[in-house]
Amino acid sequence: MDSIKVGLLGFGVVGSGVVKVLQKNSAEIEKRVGRKIELAAIADLDLKTDRGVKVDKKILTTDGFAVCADPQIDIIVETVGGTGIAAKFIETALSHGKHVVTANKALLSEKGEPLFALAEKQGKLLLFEAAVGGAIPIVRTLKTDLASEKIEKIFGILNGTCNFILTKLANEGGEFAEVLADAQKRGFAEADPTLDIEGGDTAHKIALLASIAFGAKIDFSKIHIEGITKLSAADFEFARRLNRKIKLIAIAKKENGEIEIRVNPTLLPIESPLAKIDGVTNAIAVHGQNLGQIILSGPGAGSLPTATAVVGDIIEAARGSEIPSRGVPERLLQKFPIKKIDAIESEFYLRFAVKDVAGVIRDISNVLAKYELSIRDILQLDLNEFKREVPLVILLHKNSELLVRKAVEEINQLKCVNGKTVVLRVEE
Amino acid sequence: MDSIKVGLLGFGVVGSGVVKVLQKNSAEIEKRVGRKIELAAIADLDLKTDRGVKVDKKILTTDGFAVCADPQIDIIVETVGGTGIAAKFIETALSHGKHVVTANKALLSEKGEPLFALAEKQGKLLLFEAAVGGAIPIVRTLKTDLASEKIEKIFGILNGTCNFILTKLANEGGEFAEVLADAQKRGFAEADPTLDIEGGDTAHKIALLASIAFGAKIDFSKIHIEGITKLSAADFEFARRLNRKIKLIAIAKKENGEIEIRVNPTLLPIESPLAKIDGVTNAIAVHGQNLGQIILSGPGAGSLPTATAVVGDIIEAARGSEIPSRGVPERLLQKFPIKKIDAIESEFYLRFAVKDVAGVIRDISNVLAKYELSIRDILQLDLNEFKREVPLVILLHKNSELLVRKAVEEINQLKCVNGKTVVLRVEE
Repeated sequence: MDSIKVGLLGFGVVGSGVVKVLQKNSAEIEKRVGRKIELAAIADLDLKTDRGVKVDKKILTTDGFAVCADPQIDIIVETVGGTGIAAKFIETALSHGKHVVTANKALLSEKGEPLFALAEKQGKLLLFEAAVGGAIPIVRTLKTDLASEKIEKIFGILNGTCNFILTKLANEGGEFAEVLADAQKRGFAEADPTLDIEGGDTAHKIALLASIAFGAKIDFSKIHIEGITKLSAADFEFARRLNRKIKLIAIAKKENGEIEIRVNPTLLPIESPLAKIDGVTNAIAVHGQNLGQIILSGPGAGSLPTATAVVGDIIEAARGSEIPSRGVPERLLQKFPIKKIDAIESEFYLRFAVKDVAGVIRDISNVLAKYELSIRDILQLDLNEFKREVPLVILLHKNSELLVRKAVEEINQLKCVNGKTVVLRVEE
Repeated sequence: MDSIKVGLLGFGVVGSGVVKVLQKNSAEIEKRVGRKIELAAIADLDLKTDRGVKVDKKILTTDGFAVCADPQIDIIVETVGGTGIAAKFIETALSHGKHVVTANKALLSEKGEPLFALAEKQGKLLLFEAAVGGAIPIVRTLKTDLASEKIEKIFGILNGTCNFILTKLANEGGEFAEVLADAQKRGFAEADPTLDIEGGDTAHKIALLASIAFGAKIDFSKIHIEGITKLSAADFEFARRLNRKIKLIAIAKKENGEIEIRVNPTLLPIESPLAKIDGVTNAIAVHGQNLGQIILSGPGAGSLPTATAVVGDIIEAARGSEIPSRGVPERLLQKFPIKKIDAIESEFYLRFAVKDVAGVIRDISNVLAKYELSIRDILQLDLNEFKREVPLVILLHKNSELLVRKAVEEINQLKCVNGKTVVLRVEE
């Protein structure tokens, strides 16, 4: 039988990984697909740099659009990234009747709707296993194994850069800026780390997972996103004493026809499975009515793990899969209301910087009582190595964000409180 | 479009779970498949017992073979269990051109070859996601996401009963027999627990996983199997002091064209991911050339988690999947040589029961030196609460089973050693 022909757009870290995986495992892949997978074209503006991989010069081109339109090509792999030209490439490829495989979570979560619609109209697949959790098989698991389940909640550590930084701050101390600089030096953080450390990348990923898990169209702009940049050494010290770890957690829940979706630093009990996920590893917990909880973990990024997922998608397309790209036909995806952050209830960690004067706890607890916020734990430590002020931590029982925020605003006006209060969420 | 018609054989724990999942999630499933899934027949010898689920009496029958031959039915779900009549049912169903979904690991791993061959000949699927790890999506992950990968090693906790017992022995002490009795009382162990505690069930599961991961036919009789019945309280105490946990581990590796496959109690470092898997939870680590390691964990058994996996397979069949039942067409599955246990190298834990006399360590270390076995750790504890003899533990560096066994046989003849030496494997 004829080989399946793949056109690769972008010959960078992931793209060159894809070439390596296709070359190294070609015999295994052919066995599993029943046909040869042939890399027929590679498009990149830079054709000079050595990618540590041998390819026939004849398949190299700088014209990505020509590859997308090439009638010989069956599957386009987009590893260009970004939400600009990548969208045009994918649109062109789909319009020319090709399946598309991508790891581009920013594009799919922010501007994916017309592309998914076009794919379905064309009867083609737009696959993105590599967009979330690198080689962790979460996307396909939601579309296949868990197609029989009503998923209630997804809870994940989805960004390796953040988890590396948080692990280091927890284990070795130090302040955020130093550890970030170290992560950058070691290649675990980008030169511009904004998308990672401010939580945007994590939000892209949870949006895609929620879409499949709940059969929903997710309006990305409505996701509540907090990053990890406001955490300080004191928070890690308090977390340790509270037997907790701070992780950047993405949560998506569906309850009573509404979706709750957010990204925020969260204090987890140290014995909880996600608290034990350290370094650049990612992990995703899925809760369902019938299955209880499953957890998938592994390398969340990296050239070869990501490429393994991309080639897994190429194989799915080559095998002629009939599974819709997001698990449910596009016309059946629903637009559930997204809960406003004000209305979301959780437990809270409040760290106040207080003056060392009498009556502080009385004044703060007065305000909390006014909003009917009940205190679960209270902890004041003489951590003057961290700050001029005395840090005071209060853990609140489950309550709505709105009430907590109002109380904190009022407390911040008290004379005995200096600076801004740190508000973190707590999950069991 | 017409509905997909399912015939269920066996209306027990898993069977009634399948009915519940199909009923509770029918709308979600129809969305994902594009057709209704209809439970058209249920066969069981006992039609009286209340299964806590409402079904139309008209679909109940005691004649399983009639269901397998019913021309209206598209997919047969076999939850009868065992290697006897279940094989006949599956054969009949496949012969009549139906897809078959089963959770029957004993049958598929010991006598599955003719059934898989028949399924392929008939162009039908014989699916078994629920046979390994309940709702953990390991079978499909190996066939799809990891179809792009050369898998090097699978390492798993695959039996919830054993893991429950081992967790209790580690955390609360006690002897094996008491804890087993407690597990039976609490429904975590069968009345006849042999298949679980002697490792047979774990071996069935690793055989199926190895088959998919390595594209291989596995001769089940060649798997080295040790259970957990010989462990005593002393071993858990030593493990604790060595900063290790004892887990019943299934391992399958492929190296230099040979397969190593075995089930044995293993000492793992407490910080390793599988050491942290407690209670009835299962977990599977998959190592590959490119992906590094991924770990999947979740409930390894139970009516609804297992049923979730069964219905996932029904959905795969209903979607018209072209993926071969074991990931690779039957004719391309290879028969790799299975390594003899003698030739397998690992680190070892030896617990001797020694008399409290001078020269014991000299005599034992003399024998070890003769076989060129070098000692990594040595630990003697005054644990006379456990035994009349003094227990002495020696950890050996990596060596072949054969040499270690020869040395142990010789040491067991020494006058200063009483009773039988416990030999466990150690992994990092």
